[in-house]
Amino acid sequence: MALGEFDLIARYFRPLAGSAGLGLADDAALLRPPAGRDLVLSLDTMVAGVHFLSEDPPDTIARKLLRVNLSDLAAKGARPLGYLLALSLPRATEESWIADFAAGLAADQARFAIALLGGDTTATPGPLTASITVLGDVASGAMLRRAGAVAGDAIWVSGTLGDGALGLAVAQGQLRFTGPEAEVHAASLLARYRLPQPRLALAAAAEAAGGLGAIAHAGMDVSDGLIQDLGHLCVASGGLGAEVEAAALPLSAAAAAALAEEPGRLASVLAGGDDYEVLLAAPDSAAPELARLAADSGVALRRIGRLSASGRVIARDAGGRDITPARGGYRHF
Amino acid sequence: MALGEFDLIARYFRPLAGSAGLGLADDAALLRPPAGRDLVLSLDTMVAGVHFLSEDPPDTIARKLLRVNLSDLAAKGARPLGYLLALSLPRATEESWIADFAAGLAADQARFAIALLGGDTTATPGPLTASITVLGDVASGAMLRRAGAVAGDAIWVSGTLGDGALGLAVAQGQLRFTGPEAEVHAASLLARYRLPQPRLALAAAAEAAGGLGAIAHAGMDVSDGLIQDLGHLCVASGGLGAEVEAAALPLSAAAAAALAEEPGRLASVLAGGDDYEVLLAAPDSAAPELARLAADSGVALRRIGRLSASGRVIARDAGGRDITPARGGYRHF
Repeated sequence: MALGEFDLIARYFRPLAGSAGLGLADDAALLRPPAGRDLVLSLDTMVAGVHFLSEDPPDTIARKLLRVNLSDLAAKGARPLGYLLALSLPRATEESWIADFAAGLAADQARFAIALLGGDTTATPGPLTASITVLGDVASGAMLRRAGAVAGDAIWVSGTLGDGALGLAVAQGQLRFTGPEAEVHAASLLARYRLPQPRLALAAAAEAAGGLGAIAHAGMDVSDGLIQDLGHLCVASGGLGAEVEAAALPLSAAAAAALAEEPGRLASVLAGGDDYEVLLAAPDSAAPELARLAADSGVALRRIGRLSASGRVIARDAGGRDITPARGGYRHF
Repeated sequence: MALGEFDLIARYFRPLAGSAGLGLADDAALLRPPAGRDLVLSLDTMVAGVHFLSEDPPDTIARKLLRVNLSDLAAKGARPLGYLLALSLPRATEESWIADFAAGLAADQARFAIALLGGDTTATPGPLTASITVLGDVASGAMLRRAGAVAGDAIWVSGTLGDGALGLAVAQGQLRFTGPEAEVHAASLLARYRLPQPRLALAAAAEAAGGLGAIAHAGMDVSDGLIQDLGHLCVASGGLGAEVEAAALPLSAAAAAALAEEPGRLASVLAGGDDYEVLLAAPDSAAPELARLAADSGVALRRIGRLSASGRVIARDAGGRDITPARGGYRHF
């Protein structure tokens, strides 16, 4: 790369900095926290060859990294404030790659009304590695936690499940569609794999009611696979169990088509990961309010099962058979 | 590594989490910001083979990463609140390496009274890469900025300069001492390279007076080399210049010995980097207050030069000759 470190920052990242980022021309960012609100902080890393494919477009890599972080905020009922970026670049990185990466951030900053607060750009002899630390805020005391669910709570999930994992299978050539809708299905799954949809609109719609935390007992982001993530919520809530009704899982048209051709693809819906949907545990009495939130936000919410005291997370088919996959989700090691 | 991702986090990182980190068992950290204070945020990354040597002890790698971030807070006049850690590990990383890394963090958390808020642990096919995002707070409106210095301000620096860069030369076998103090000098420089000393005590001593920002006009962390970093402060303050008196630069006994043997080592003091000292620009009227801060905090402060309107950063020897090194500091690209 011909461009020096400081020129690179000035040309591509300074335009992304909001007032709190001080033009990326200081040692630190300066943020006045909104009064009466708690801060919510999350961090996610993506490594080339591990979390994205080297041929993925740089703008979608950037947007995905930002969005997986924003999805954590959405699942906590928080509103995004801004983010910091750690970027370690191989020396052979083309300037055009960085320009496209920054353009992706710019597009999503505008979409989600946030700005870059700060960061660090370094060289690496390894694969391109990027981390984002995102900050958000919630009404004081209103952050939705993994803990707090109780046996008997209904389990709700936003959007549709399985699209991300199926989109990866499309990208890797492991999933092909036939029929007149083949191209549309493949493209829509690939888009979902590359561009998660953080469900911030749900939290925003809940603000007037005191936040998502005032409506649901517990919540988290489905990112590593529904069964595994639901297990984390159960553990955090004191060793609960859960029964998921596979027939109730919300599927996109493309995912439904994939399952119709290969029923074994249900594992991608139950345990594939890369969903970035909000998982909520809520008492049945919250159902009307959740329906209102879904209507107000335009984000679908579906009841997919119920928490129990069993200590086990089980998926059942329409006939009641246990179809829990052996592997509940993604692990790095 | 035999340990799984979640076990690794539970065994080594959960014990580092403070209450805001929620036991690292949630999607996000939850922090109630102190009332009437601004948040200060900074991020630094270290990559194996770029920012540290593979044979460096893991506990000092962890502590250095934390301390370079804390040094940014110190230079902004901030008090540390906590940090988030992004860790990308080669699959061959030994569990003992991680145990030592976490032990280093534990030691410094105790020393600086902070806790881990959250993070992300991933695999990488490349070198070990770690980023820390640190949060601190200052009295509202009191953060010391790079901007705000004026021509005529005295330039002050904390501690001693050059030790980090000379310590790296010791580690790489490029600097050897002779004489009875040889081992002591080498060890002290190596320690300074491996363990920066964030000057948080200065900011703490300034709290009662409204913070460092109420005493100095501008400030920053010297991390990439004095001349280069001073240049950043001059640019941020509207295109100032600076004259640094080389004879006034504060040197440790070991650095003084190295320069006595090889005067060319002065370049390490002026432009070597890895100093992690606080650089301040302050009117002469602030000198008594700065002397008080130094006495109260136990952190030496030395006047090393003066800002000018020249637009150039120059170092002069005792005879007034321009000895500005051609390369003012470290750049990644």
